[in-house]
Amino acid sequence: MRIAVINETSAADRNADILLALEGRGHEVFNCGMKKGGEAPELSYIHTGFLAALILAMGKVDFVIGGCGTGQGFLNAAMAYPGVSCGHILTPLDAWLFARINDGNCISLALNQGYGWAADVNLRLIFDELFSSERGSGYPKKRSEPQAFSRRLITQVSAITHHSFQDIVSSLPDEVALPALRYPGIFEFLLDGIKNGNTGSSSDSYSILARAVEARLHR
Amino acid sequence: MRIAVINETSAADRNADILLALEGRGHEVFNCGMKKGGEAPELSYIHTGFLAALILAMGKVDFVIGGCGTGQGFLNAAMAYPGVSCGHILTPLDAWLFARINDGNCISLALNQGYGWAADVNLRLIFDELFSSERGSGYPKKRSEPQAFSRRLITQVSAITHHSFQDIVSSLPDEVALPALRYPGIFEFLLDGIKNGNTGSSSDSYSILARAVEARLHR
Amino acid sequence: MRIAVINETSAADRNADILLALEGRGHEVFNCGMKKGGEAPELSYIHTGFLAALILAMGKVDFVIGGCGTGQGFLNAAMAYPGVSCGHILTPLDAWLFARINDGNCISLALNQGYGWAADVNLRLIFDELFSSERGSGYPKKRSEPQAFSRRLITQVSAITHHSFQDIVSSLPDEVALPALRYPGIFEFLLDGIKNGNTGSSSDSYSILARAVEARLHR
Amino acid sequence: MRIAVINETSAADRNADILLALEGRGHEVFNCGMKKGGEAPELSYIHTGFLAALILAMGKVDFVIGGCGTGQGFLNAAMAYPGVSCGHILTPLDAWLFARINDGNCISLALNQGYGWAADVNLRLIFDELFSSERGSGYPKKRSEPQAFSRRLITQVSAITHHSFQDIVSSLPDEVALPALRYPGIFEFLLDGIKNGNTGSSSDSYSILARAVEARLHR
Repeated sequence: MRIAVINETSAADRNADILLALEGRGHEVFNCGMKKGGEAPELSYIHTGFLAALILAMGKVDFVIGGCGTGQGFLNAAMAYPGVSCGHILTPLDAWLFARINDGNCISLALNQGYGWAADVNLRLIFDELFSSERGSGYPKKRSEPQAFSRRLITQVSAITHHSFQDIVSSLPDEVALPALRYPGIFEFLLDGIKNGNTGSSSDSYSILARAVEARLHR
Repeated sequence: MRIAVINETSAADRNADILLALEGRGHEVFNCGMKKGGEAPELSYIHTGFLAALILAMGKVDFVIGGCGTGQGFLNAAMAYPGVSCGHILTPLDAWLFARINDGNCISLALNQGYGWAADVNLRLIFDELFSSERGSGYPKKRSEPQAFSRRLITQVSAITHHSFQDIVSSLPDEVALPALRYPGIFEFLLDGIKNGNTGSSSDSYSILARAVEARLHR
Repeated sequence: MRIAVINETSAADRNADILLALEGRGHEVFNCGMKKGGEAPELSYIHTGFLAALILAMGKVDFVIGGCGTGQGFLNAAMAYPGVSCGHILTPLDAWLFARINDGNCISLALNQGYGWAADVNLRLIFDELFSSERGSGYPKKRSEPQAFSRRLITQVSAITHHSFQDIVSSLPDEVALPALRYPGIFEFLLDGIKNGNTGSSSDSYSILARAVEARLHR
Repeated sequence: MRIAVINETSAADRNADILLALEGRGHEVFNCGMKKGGEAPELSYIHTGFLAALILAMGKVDFVIGGCGTGQGFLNAAMAYPGVSCGHILTPLDAWLFARINDGNCISLALNQGYGWAADVNLRLIFDELFSSERGSGYPKKRSEPQAFSRRLITQVSAITHHSFQDIVSSLPDEVALPALRYPGIFEFLLDGIKNGNTGSSSDSYSILARAVEARLHR
């Protein structure tokens, strides 16, 4: 799986723990946000929430791992956008259930609250259950069908309730869009599909969003 | 405070626990969703999420208490709509921090996972901290300003990324809108402002949404 | 490993969950306590705590899994006796750490508090970490030596602070000793070593305790 | 209430948090263990467990608050001695239940595992519930009687299974007894009753233990 890790400023020091806990699983990991606390430029959860949603919408990754001090801020920020299904994941059991029932594309971790000694181990145990082969299989098994139905419906609802992502990219306030899009490495990560010419027709959703990002940065 | 409690089907049996834990706090409580498991008609978290957001958007209450088996489904459903700031609240400490940092208008409870013996007591301890006089005061105190700024920004983002709620009401699929709006008592609850004539001008947001709800039900 | 599962009355209905979660691990499991709530005769945590310690002292098993509503009662009851090192284990991380740091011979589970939906899954995740090949390896690794030293010292302290187990067997009040020793299957389980004649000299600790149990039952 | 706080070395830096969370409750607090990480002399949980039990046995305090990295080590160490009823307390609900059901005289806190941001607040919420006027009232209420019976029985069992505390004081290994009894301030705290002459007859349990402590230190 292609996984983006996106840390905001208050928990940027946990970035290394997350990367380490993801190792050895055969995933392609993109470390898109802050790497260390106190670094400039900073990203708040408002920015990482936007980036999480954008990266997913552009199809750059299959899954985003974000978070903040309590996990509530990033969760709310990411879910302001269309196409995000985000779990608030604190324990291996949360991960086990979220993978089976919600099968979302994003999680928000509590990276300061409750983040003590051995919390890095807990991340590992969480990822053990999260990236399971049972994603979307339902729990309990007999609820598999209605749960799959709910997932499809919520995806549909999210598309209906939100503006198109390209419109969002162009209408977000500067203080949300610019620190996110100008964050070191983001532009290259988002737009390398264009350079590589492997993005299909110019009317596909990646190309439309890529152009919207470019336009926003250069206006 | 005016508080709506909205339970979906899988955890409808927890409804009585929630009501009891809210007692004696001087709040005006509206019990809008399911009251007992197995009752017809059923509401899924897709429906209660929509109702939570709608009730808030119409200004009928100040706060919504929802949830589902794990809390993740209702959270994702409610946050598909504009104007919802929802916490996933499992412990008194979660509530204490959410009240101070996020100061949202909605919480999602885990009402099956981890919901064992004395979970009703835990609800009481959660509400003790949630409905604190310190809402929005920030934690730690010195982060009060940037946290308030983030709250305002996320509210603004939510308004920008979503269609207007009246458009949402008219464009949601039938299987989302109708079971919710036709749920016993909902129509009366949502539209009593119109009957009572205490809703100000016909162009205010309550009246616009009230008309959208009526139109949707009668089309 | 040889594992005894010992349930008291308030959480006897969890017995089946525990057995199921232990399956497929290659352990020899002895189901020594209550199997179902409401069955007569009942065992309280006072009785299961005594049985846990006695079974360990007689060398019948390597590990005991007990618990009660919150886990605190069984823990306190079992630890009243010599030779018990018991963890209060609620999450997979608790199990991971307890196996490495404390490497005890007993755990106490919370089997009503927090025991909701999917708690059976949580048991499985807990056992995944508990019966690890890393038992006693220390955490963090560099603390391996002092942690092993502490384990040896606490074992030594427990032997010094307690009377001999045979004296304990003979001096416990009837309401503690008798419901435990007379519980269906216990006598046979404890004393089959004598019948089988595979217990070494009559002065070994098993034989001494077996005689003490017999004496207690027949006085 | 008279409360002793006793921290061991791995979590000594939490000592200030515990003291602060105890403030304003009208308790008399004795800070008997380590105050800061890295200070010499160090106390391990083996020593703080012994001190906790001894201080309770001598009647110097009504309650002991201890802990260690996970809470399991101190718990096991303290419970090796007679007369200790210790809870492993992680959440306000744990405290609420422990106060009502077990009504013990000691708690063990997890002071590194899970001890992140706002854990000091969690301590406050825990103490809010722990030092409740409802101690020993039972939960649920209708189980009040059997729970009180179990408490009395476990107290009786602890007295039967252990040697007398004065014998324990004289027979513990040097590496357990001496670092504990020689810890700065301990001798004075334990024996001030003798100096003050307010200890009643020389055969009461305080005097017997005080003499045992003195003898151990001077042999």
